[in-house]
Amino acid sequence: MINVGIIGGSGYTGVELLRLLLPRTDVSIRFVSSRAHAGTRVDEQFTSLRGHCDLEFSDPATINQAECDLVFFATPNGTAMHQAPALLEAGVKVVDLSADYRIKDIGTWERWYGLTHTSPAWVERAVYGLPEINREAIRSADLVANPGCYPTTVQLGFLPLLEAGLVDTKSLIADAKSGVSGAGRAASVPTLLAEASDNFKAYGVSGHRHLPEIEQGLTFMSDSPIDLTFTPHLLPIIRGIHATLYAPLKSGVSASEEELQALFESRFKSEPFVDVLPSGVYPETRSVKGSNTVRLSVLKPQGRNTVVVLAVEDNLVKGAAGQAVQNMNLMMGMEETEGLQGLPLLP
Amino acid sequence: MINVGIIGGSGYTGVELLRLLLPRTDVSIRFVSSRAHAGTRVDEQFTSLRGHCDLEFSDPATINQAECDLVFFATPNGTAMHQAPALLEAGVKVVDLSADYRIKDIGTWERWYGLTHTSPAWVERAVYGLPEINREAIRSADLVANPGCYPTTVQLGFLPLLEAGLVDTKSLIADAKSGVSGAGRAASVPTLLAEASDNFKAYGVSGHRHLPEIEQGLTFMSDSPIDLTFTPHLLPIIRGIHATLYAPLKSGVSASEEELQALFESRFKSEPFVDVLPSGVYPETRSVKGSNTVRLSVLKPQGRNTVVVLAVEDNLVKGAAGQAVQNMNLMMGMEETEGLQGLPLLP
Amino acid sequence: MINVGIIGGSGYTGVELLRLLLPRTDVSIRFVSSRAHAGTRVDEQFTSLRGHCDLEFSDPATINQAECDLVFFATPNGTAMHQAPALLEAGVKVVDLSADYRIKDIGTWERWYGLTHTSPAWVERAVYGLPEINREAIRSADLVANPGCYPTTVQLGFLPLLEAGLVDTKSLIADAKSGVSGAGRAASVPTLLAEASDNFKAYGVSGHRHLPEIEQGLTFMSDSPIDLTFTPHLLPIIRGIHATLYAPLKSGVSASEEELQALFESRFKSEPFVDVLPSGVYPETRSVKGSNTVRLSVLKPQGRNTVVVLAVEDNLVKGAAGQAVQNMNLMMGMEETEGLQGLPLLP
Amino acid sequence: MINVGIIGGSGYTGVELLRLLLPRTDVSIRFVSSRAHAGTRVDEQFTSLRGHCDLEFSDPATINQAECDLVFFATPNGTAMHQAPALLEAGVKVVDLSADYRIKDIGTWERWYGLTHTSPAWVERAVYGLPEINREAIRSADLVANPGCYPTTVQLGFLPLLEAGLVDTKSLIADAKSGVSGAGRAASVPTLLAEASDNFKAYGVSGHRHLPEIEQGLTFMSDSPIDLTFTPHLLPIIRGIHATLYAPLKSGVSASEEELQALFESRFKSEPFVDVLPSGVYPETRSVKGSNTVRLSVLKPQGRNTVVVLAVEDNLVKGAAGQAVQNMNLMMGMEETEGLQGLPLLP
Repeated sequence: MINVGIIGGSGYTGVELLRLLLPRTDVSIRFVSSRAHAGTRVDEQFTSLRGHCDLEFSDPATINQAECDLVFFATPNGTAMHQAPALLEAGVKVVDLSADYRIKDIGTWERWYGLTHTSPAWVERAVYGLPEINREAIRSADLVANPGCYPTTVQLGFLPLLEAGLVDTKSLIADAKSGVSGAGRAASVPTLLAEASDNFKAYGVSGHRHLPEIEQGLTFMSDSPIDLTFTPHLLPIIRGIHATLYAPLKSGVSASEEELQALFESRFKSEPFVDVLPSGVYPETRSVKGSNTVRLSVLKPQGRNTVVVLAVEDNLVKGAAGQAVQNMNLMMGMEETEGLQGLPLLP
Repeated sequence: MINVGIIGGSGYTGVELLRLLLPRTDVSIRFVSSRAHAGTRVDEQFTSLRGHCDLEFSDPATINQAECDLVFFATPNGTAMHQAPALLEAGVKVVDLSADYRIKDIGTWERWYGLTHTSPAWVERAVYGLPEINREAIRSADLVANPGCYPTTVQLGFLPLLEAGLVDTKSLIADAKSGVSGAGRAASVPTLLAEASDNFKAYGVSGHRHLPEIEQGLTFMSDSPIDLTFTPHLLPIIRGIHATLYAPLKSGVSASEEELQALFESRFKSEPFVDVLPSGVYPETRSVKGSNTVRLSVLKPQGRNTVVVLAVEDNLVKGAAGQAVQNMNLMMGMEETEGLQGLPLLP
Repeated sequence: MINVGIIGGSGYTGVELLRLLLPRTDVSIRFVSSRAHAGTRVDEQFTSLRGHCDLEFSDPATINQAECDLVFFATPNGTAMHQAPALLEAGVKVVDLSADYRIKDIGTWERWYGLTHTSPAWVERAVYGLPEINREAIRSADLVANPGCYPTTVQLGFLPLLEAGLVDTKSLIADAKSGVSGAGRAASVPTLLAEASDNFKAYGVSGHRHLPEIEQGLTFMSDSPIDLTFTPHLLPIIRGIHATLYAPLKSGVSASEEELQALFESRFKSEPFVDVLPSGVYPETRSVKGSNTVRLSVLKPQGRNTVVVLAVEDNLVKGAAGQAVQNMNLMMGMEETEGLQGLPLLP
Repeated sequence: MINVGIIGGSGYTGVELLRLLLPRTDVSIRFVSSRAHAGTRVDEQFTSLRGHCDLEFSDPATINQAECDLVFFATPNGTAMHQAPALLEAGVKVVDLSADYRIKDIGTWERWYGLTHTSPAWVERAVYGLPEINREAIRSADLVANPGCYPTTVQLGFLPLLEAGLVDTKSLIADAKSGVSGAGRAASVPTLLAEASDNFKAYGVSGHRHLPEIEQGLTFMSDSPIDLTFTPHLLPIIRGIHATLYAPLKSGVSASEEELQALFESRFKSEPFVDVLPSGVYPETRSVKGSNTVRLSVLKPQGRNTVVVLAVEDNLVKGAAGQAVQNMNLMMGMEETEGLQGLPLLP
């Protein structure tokens, strides 16, 4: 039995952590904090938890975080960098679901997030929590920077191509589409149902904060300079990301669709949460709704030079809370898949 | 050519007034005011208007309302009661889309809206803008209180039954469902797509502000005391209200479904914006999307004692801006249907 | 470990049975039959099951049903009445999710379903599978008629009022709204996304097949003749039923909202799958998405004479497959809640 | 006043033609044919037309097409190639909304559509009905092949770049997303609300019939061989296409985002139905809902080498019926914009 805490538990990643952790008998949730809702029952905010959760939201000022083995930060960007170091120094492990520790180059981070980083030393020690790449490092990490939602699908989709050195890394394209839960639970006009439903649009095309995170990851995989064109779009659905990835084969490289299929199957055959679909089957976001699985297809349309990868995830699970639990499992020496085996909800 | 102005034009009823009025050659829009957006182009807020609208939002403080023949208030409750009287005294006609002048009993209004009314004398002079009941009074009105969205469907649905004295007015039920645009364009958590889509719930069951407005109208029709149970629900659609109305036949009254059908057809046969559907056809909200029409069905299921009326409208058109334009047409001596003949958008 | 089979497994109730049963270590699924898909892998139809299900759809003609302890019929109406008797006579227990055994009066059934019943003797022996009413009878039943989706919420919502004899049973109204998965997975124009989304309508108002089923149940509870006006509507959501129930207090009966709240809490306090919400909180369909729980509120608006009950369920879980599993648990001597403790998916 | 007929009027493009043509006083609709619905009123199928349409569906066998000046084919692929020639020879003009006359190379058409073409001579004489490219030819055409929905946005989006010779035509990518009305009004499982809502997926990635149509158009514009990777996706909305286009600048070509913006504005400044958005504003599908406008943005993210174009249309209007009416206007010597000036419906 381990003891965990959740800082910033009133958003969608907070309630999703609860959905995944409450049924577990090997994890005890010691606190869920929320400045705004301190003192009210968690199941008043989230009626879906009634009968499964007796917790109240705690005031962050009053909680004893040191009684935890591990603490999740489900806070807005800029909070964990202030609060995590004290915890880490007290021997508590941390999984940060925000962006504070994801980018190794402090200057890059500060430019994209518009803040001065207050704990750069911990950035260096943080492990980027994508188990499919960093599994062993995660096992021994004190601080895991949980990847962003878009970066998870985009990196996993490009991974086999980059590791194998098949594609031109200066001409990568990620056309990504996300459900609105990715924008969080804050009141805002653009994500109102009356604005976002029966509608579709791109946003952040000239520059989205997930771009440097993805490029850092792709550079690491390929050991080559990366130029990625990343176009996020807002989907009128609640959960789900679909990334459509395009990469031209390097000049002089030939690879058939069958060879690419075999490459993907081989790369991910031991991965519990990556499912390479059979040739001819394309992924759909609902096929992973509520689950920690990424499903992938790889194609080479019309036998031409451009490889197309289709990748889906549930942005709140593998793109956030599920991956955080997967990281917790690894960090605490538990079975990696524990508590993450629930089937997707379809239809 | 008449001159009109719109006060509070940055919400959904504001843009809908523009959609209906901009194509007209007999109406000139002199200003659209918005405190928040003063100085910016209207088509920046509403890209749909590009190419059809050169207006900027005006600061309410700087506009010359007196140059208008008629001014629409598309403001939150509590604004028109302050600003309309000066206009009216300057000879400008007013259509108020808010609730300020809808309820004749000042005490009732103040109790439900939590405000002290500042122009009770104009409440008395205001005409309730439901043309199917008050057409002649509207023609000569200076101030029209445009009905609420729910009250329009519910009153029109009950109208033939109450006028004919067929049903027990102490046991009326209106189970009403509205799209989220009825909640307006303000940022709020409950109307986020991630909260309201793939979801359905009732709200305001213990008491909704449209209850006294509806009961006042039904009392007027029937000349009897009314007890209405009114249950509003939030539909995961953008536009549309569906009211399902239940009324028991009075003891001693018998009326077949055919007789009820004939009663409804007869009552509304001259109404340009009320469509009684043939027997066996039920209305659906999309059949009036973007149009000023209310469609109605009347049934007596299983030959029992309870009459069921189904009524649909587009809450932004017949439930708000369209009815306001219909009232303007009447007040200005124009053809009642002018500018309101557009076909619904289906699918 | 028990052995079960599923006849007719390619629809929504079929895949939902699989979602609930596959993770269980105490249940072995011996076959899933489908005439249309025989010979293909189940996870080809339902990609969500990949990694959790190695079954192929069987041809109904070739399966050995007798190797099962219990067989689920997830077939269209009119199939189980032909096939269940042989199984039952071979000692296999049956849970029928179709309507074949729900209505005791054969004439009534034949009139509403337009078929001649071929096993009326088993109708008499069948137990209506609403555990909140029939728990003990279900434990010893060979054949359980699993209730319809609407009948489950409507009966549970009225139950405390009827048992306590508080309301006039000749004036009951159930205004019910269902997500489209209730219409099944057959290709049809009215449930296309382009027809049913951004839309809302009533259907079957003059007579829906669930009416006699509900009236039979309500009569049983109240021991009084019942007149129910039942109005189903189609919601543009996938899963979820919301029933808004209206009942006038009997002449001479007075009961405050607080007393009604206490009555409901008392009636359901031991029920694992019925959640009476605190006063002032209304249920929403998403609060039970993917779970076997019914949530209820009871109100008496404006202190008048009409009691309003709000009830939600997931039509594929408590309204179909979940209740079927609950019944299986009872019939097989397992813990009633086994495999049904998963948390709802929210958002 | 001109006389027109609609062959195949019971689908979404049929009802959309009616929505656009019924209000016109300069166009008389002589017949709307439908084999399946012959003899029933059109407004029984489409309640939205009640009060605006007294037509019945005609049996195709009984109509006198020769009384028309122009006939629209809103039929499945493979019908117009049989029926149009007789009409054309009788002097009736034809706008074919199907794909029969879109592709000049008969072999290519037959390979992609799996049919033998029965009127190849008319393929040669047909004019491809994209007014922004072929306006003058359309004015004098007898037979216009109305473009597909995807091809309209994709071609208009690439047009300025190809005409100016700025981009590498062997590395074009079109990542396109369409609402489900593009799949038509036929009953089918994949477009059921319960399958397609709250979901997103790609389809036809290995080869979609619009690929050769688009490549033919792009080749015509650029006079260069084209390699396009075209990835269509299904959006859970009713109307709307969003195409996200990617093209690398040719080696040696430099062009700033400002220069690209100026190029697009200049190319389309006289086009009544193409709206180039100001720099920094991105199009959204709802901004053109119900209207004949395409809105475009052009970007060069991060100052890199890849040009990104965002383009939206209403697939039933500019992508089908609206463009057909625009073509009719041109062919009949009417004002090009007549009947197409309605404002989009937002929200």
